[in-house]
Amino acid sequence: MFSAELKSDTLKGLVNIISTLIDEVKFTITPDGMTLKAVDAAHVAMIEMEIDKGAFENYTAQDSEIGLDLDKVKDVLKLASSGNPIRMEQDETHGRLVFKVGNITRTMHLVDTSSMSDPKVPNLDLAAKISLMVDELQKGIRAAESISDHITLRAGDGYFELSCEGDTDSVNLRLEGESAKVSFDGEPHEVSSMFPLDYFSNITKAIPASTVVTVELDRDYPVKLVFALADGHARVRYLLAPRIESE
Amino acid sequence: MFSAELKSDTLKGLVNIISTLIDEVKFTITPDGMTLKAVDAAHVAMIEMEIDKGAFENYTAQDSEIGLDLDKVKDVLKLASSGNPIRMEQDETHGRLVFKVGNITRTMHLVDTSSMSDPKVPNLDLAAKISLMVDELQKGIRAAESISDHITLRAGDGYFELSCEGDTDSVNLRLEGESAKVSFDGEPHEVSSMFPLDYFSNITKAIPASTVVTVELDRDYPVKLVFALADGHARVRYLLAPRIESE
Amino acid sequence: MFSAELKSDTLKGLVNIISTLIDEVKFTITPDGMTLKAVDAAHVAMIEMEIDKGAFENYTAQDSEIGLDLDKVKDVLKLASSGNPIRMEQDETHGRLVFKVGNITRTMHLVDTSSMSDPKVPNLDLAAKISLMVDELQKGIRAAESISDHITLRAGDGYFELSCEGDTDSVNLRLEGESAKVSFDGEPHEVSSMFPLDYFSNITKAIPASTVVTVELDRDYPVKLVFALADGHARVRYLLAPRIESE
Repeated sequence: MFSAELKSDTLKGLVNIISTLIDEVKFTITPDGMTLKAVDAAHVAMIEMEIDKGAFENYTAQDSEIGLDLDKVKDVLKLASSGNPIRMEQDETHGRLVFKVGNITRTMHLVDTSSMSDPKVPNLDLAAKISLMVDELQKGIRAAESISDHITLRAGDGYFELSCEGDTDSVNLRLEGESAKVSFDGEPHEVSSMFPLDYFSNITKAIPASTVVTVELDRDYPVKLVFALADGHARVRYLLAPRIESE
Repeated sequence: MFSAELKSDTLKGLVNIISTLIDEVKFTITPDGMTLKAVDAAHVAMIEMEIDKGAFENYTAQDSEIGLDLDKVKDVLKLASSGNPIRMEQDETHGRLVFKVGNITRTMHLVDTSSMSDPKVPNLDLAAKISLMVDELQKGIRAAESISDHITLRAGDGYFELSCEGDTDSVNLRLEGESAKVSFDGEPHEVSSMFPLDYFSNITKAIPASTVVTVELDRDYPVKLVFALADGHARVRYLLAPRIESE
Repeated sequence: MFSAELKSDTLKGLVNIISTLIDEVKFTITPDGMTLKAVDAAHVAMIEMEIDKGAFENYTAQDSEIGLDLDKVKDVLKLASSGNPIRMEQDETHGRLVFKVGNITRTMHLVDTSSMSDPKVPNLDLAAKISLMVDELQKGIRAAESISDHITLRAGDGYFELSCEGDTDSVNLRLEGESAKVSFDGEPHEVSSMFPLDYFSNITKAIPASTVVTVELDRDYPVKLVFALADGHARVRYLLAPRIESE
């Protein structure tokens, strides 16, 4: 049994993040909220999301799993104006989820979750932690897009850089002081890794403007982006594998 | 002889409706106004329009016919700002219509109407009449678009529904009370017909927001949409053939 | 040595004009400003631009030449908000130009100018001079676009016309009095020439709204457009070859 109501903007914010990686997704549902673990088809990036029941206007659930096609959920979102409530009710007899938006009733076949296993999210201890507004990351991506398919993140004592090297041209965004607070697990030292620009761009552009993101970085390790949505009621961890430069 | 002036918005509203069905159109002109009857190439939908001389700022005409290419009229509309007057004057010697928009003079070759016969519009007595804002129909279409190529309209005692069934999913918009006033010719009873979504969507989206539309409906019959444009000076009847479900 | 700073809008205005003709461009740099002469690949149009050092917030330069790829400069412009300053500094050792926009550093390889010769701009004495707002030219182009690939400019005693003849339709924009001030070198007489619409449209649409343009016109001669950008600190002369009608 699952029945919930939330603001369309909240649902939209969550769906935007997840759909950067996958279209069909399994939510694990408990009386206290929902969780999600997913990896993209190419196994380059991974997402982990926890949504408290506090993110919902109403929420009643027993332990269960629900498989959703996010493209269909996006269709439902188009029917709601900003701030409109969206109600969801599970129809267990027919394996469907029923959405209600105003006087519209939208019945959606659930995706079979029996073959969808949870990916194992590695536990990483990364040397540098950078706290900054997502807007700065978005600015760095816009600058990188015309130069190369990869972006390098670099952190050192008091600075964080996004940079990109093309065949003839290069670009660099340097953040210091209040615009990027950098801390280290141990002695400060320079660390950097290179990442595929398309993945990094997709997730960064899906994060709402003015969201504070914590970037966890190390030398030739995955980068971890940690941020909250839904007024802090949803927490996201996103892991992106590095591109190791061959010599 | 034909010479007229009207606001660009008025002309635009009329052209938008007609061009959902056809590109080349014959207007029958009288001293009191213009009429138009047209059917689309696939003979699925039909339109009948009456435009009083009151829709115009100035209007002088003798009985005649004028054939217009609506794509060209749309080009003229792009030259006018909202509210600008558009003047038209027939040049009978050269078979042209001369448009004046501000200091622009646009001369347009008329379409030969000799082979364009008026379609015979059937006189239908349909059981249910539903009066509602076009905005509700537009909302139902948005919901249906991702589900199927057809939309079912259904009316009963005190309610009107737009619904759509896909292979696995479905959607339903139910209107009651003030949002759709339903009346019957005789005893109230449920009637419904299914229509091609593309035709229904094109005409519905061409009707200006907040226009009151009367939907006339019966079981497996064409649907009739009746509405007014140009502050009531233009009256439109639109007929759309049903898709009869084979058993 | 070359180092300069200017507002992003100023740079954008200049780049928009030049890039209607060519992508790779050579600027001739002096301590007092920059000049540019360019012709398009088809040798149909020519541009001459002089930019005073007054167009810049800061400007320090010795005599030199700089070759730029304007598509890359447009990428830099996307990184700046309206009004933001853009700094440029030549890195002579590496043959690069370094752009700084806020905390972004963008390094750009310069284009080799050794094979780029200055086109010889002909000195033309044209009979009619018409002074008008570029907005009127833009309006005439919008009207012409659906009619033909060519546009005729015509000036006479007290009037200026843009007109266009298609196979069946035609359009004419007539300007008189304050909307187009016409003067003649000698006795007023009607002159007209026909021009390729795409070239005339591209340059006209690139000129900022409300800019006053002087059109210099004669019978079957190139047209010259003269206008200023950057608050008068940049002067542009644009020459477009006529299409001579064969009899």
